[in-house]
Amino acid sequence: MFIIKLGGSVITDKSKVQSFKEEITNRLASEIKRANKKTIIIHGAGSFGHIIAKKYDLNAGLKNEDQLHGFSLTHAMVQKLNSLVLKSLHRYNISAVSIPPHSVLKLNNHNYSKFDNVIFKDYLDLGLIPVTFGDVVLDEKLGFSICSGDLLIELLANYFKPDKVIFVIDEDGLYSSNPKTDKNAKLIHELKLNDLLQLSTTLDSHADVTGGMGGKIASIKYLAELGIDTILLNGNKPDRLYKVLMGENVISTKVFGDRK
Amino acid sequence: MFIIKLGGSVITDKSKVQSFKEEITNRLASEIKRANKKTIIIHGAGSFGHIIAKKYDLNAGLKNEDQLHGFSLTHAMVQKLNSLVLKSLHRYNISAVSIPPHSVLKLNNHNYSKFDNVIFKDYLDLGLIPVTFGDVVLDEKLGFSICSGDLLIELLANYFKPDKVIFVIDEDGLYSSNPKTDKNAKLIHELKLNDLLQLSTTLDSHADVTGGMGGKIASIKYLAELGIDTILLNGNKPDRLYKVLMGENVISTKVFGDRK
Repeated sequence: MFIIKLGGSVITDKSKVQSFKEEITNRLASEIKRANKKTIIIHGAGSFGHIIAKKYDLNAGLKNEDQLHGFSLTHAMVQKLNSLVLKSLHRYNISAVSIPPHSVLKLNNHNYSKFDNVIFKDYLDLGLIPVTFGDVVLDEKLGFSICSGDLLIELLANYFKPDKVIFVIDEDGLYSSNPKTDKNAKLIHELKLNDLLQLSTTLDSHADVTGGMGGKIASIKYLAELGIDTILLNGNKPDRLYKVLMGENVISTKVFGDRK
Repeated sequence: MFIIKLGGSVITDKSKVQSFKEEITNRLASEIKRANKKTIIIHGAGSFGHIIAKKYDLNAGLKNEDQLHGFSLTHAMVQKLNSLVLKSLHRYNISAVSIPPHSVLKLNNHNYSKFDNVIFKDYLDLGLIPVTFGDVVLDEKLGFSICSGDLLIELLANYFKPDKVIFVIDEDGLYSSNPKTDKNAKLIHELKLNDLLQLSTTLDSHADVTGGMGGKIASIKYLAELGIDTILLNGNKPDRLYKVLMGENVISTKVFGDRK
């Protein structure tokens, strides 16, 4: 069983509001269909969530009535993105079912408090592919806050213990430094938990509102500690996702789960 | 506190696939905003749900793999309708949050088995307007089945004990016979539980796949037994919903809750 995270910057153009990358998402859907594995799909909110969430400062929690409207708008926008992702999956006859975090997850001061894993299991057992996504959610301390796709990965991976977690991102994998600003940045092909601990500080420059690469590294560390292998691969390059699902080698970063 | 059911035949054209009545839904949203009451909104699936659900015989439960695709398509279609309803609500600055039944409700052979009322309460307490809708859901006995908006009303009314449940339908209220086929049909202005028990048999001809008027009568009976007042009113006529929310009289059918 696999958990696939389709990064917000792969399926949307993060610089433009509500800009869905339909062609790329269609191709990724076709690769998931071809591989035909038991999967849970998580997608980022990308430009459908971050811009309004930032405008209303939603991650800081409830401070004024206006933010309730921001919460409502953000949730509707990520639902819209989710409908577009579903459309791509349906194009390739993938029987997906969406589980919006705001109806099954509660945080407490940004940390996990309550999550209904069982609903994901029920749909998987029935033969459906659960799809979930970065969302605004209830927060017992703050009123509400933001749940990133990366937190969902941690919760679901902990429960399902998947064979692999696959991060589909807009770079070939993890680099020795930020490849967008440093042309000497080198792709790291393989990593172990210890290497990861050293790497973290180097990559802080990648951070975005929901944690970005910084949040991702923390999640990957968590997965490695659970003994789960993670692969980061470039979703813009055809067939990499398909091949990884089929157990083949591609240009990517593999992080080996810690097997004590 | 009110529970408002926006009937599928009011917000969609039931004879055409995916035909949303935007103008009517916008006006109803404006009436809800003007009245400014604490509310839960439930909407039918109308032509976004019934047609595919019927094609794949989803209410009979899982019998073949093809139906999983039907489940997935139906859920995506009602999510699309829900996004359109949200858009109408946002047009009038209503801070709504959608709770899809398929992520919080489980049936057992069509009957209620598990439902998360608390998530509705949490959002209400925060100041948001929960919105839910007719949907495909998990069924412990059948694999899956259909949850009608009317079942949602029963579950939510039982938990929240609202001041009134308002059915926004495409007729002025309940009639002595089917007003679509019998021009001598008379609008019934007021009813008590006992009258309702007598009326039921007369109205069987209204039935549709999710229970239709027959299902509605059963729900209203259930509400009356709980001591909750129900009003059925015509959503195609301006201001009736607004006036009822403000406690004014309009052309409608009132069913008085049984106060023992």
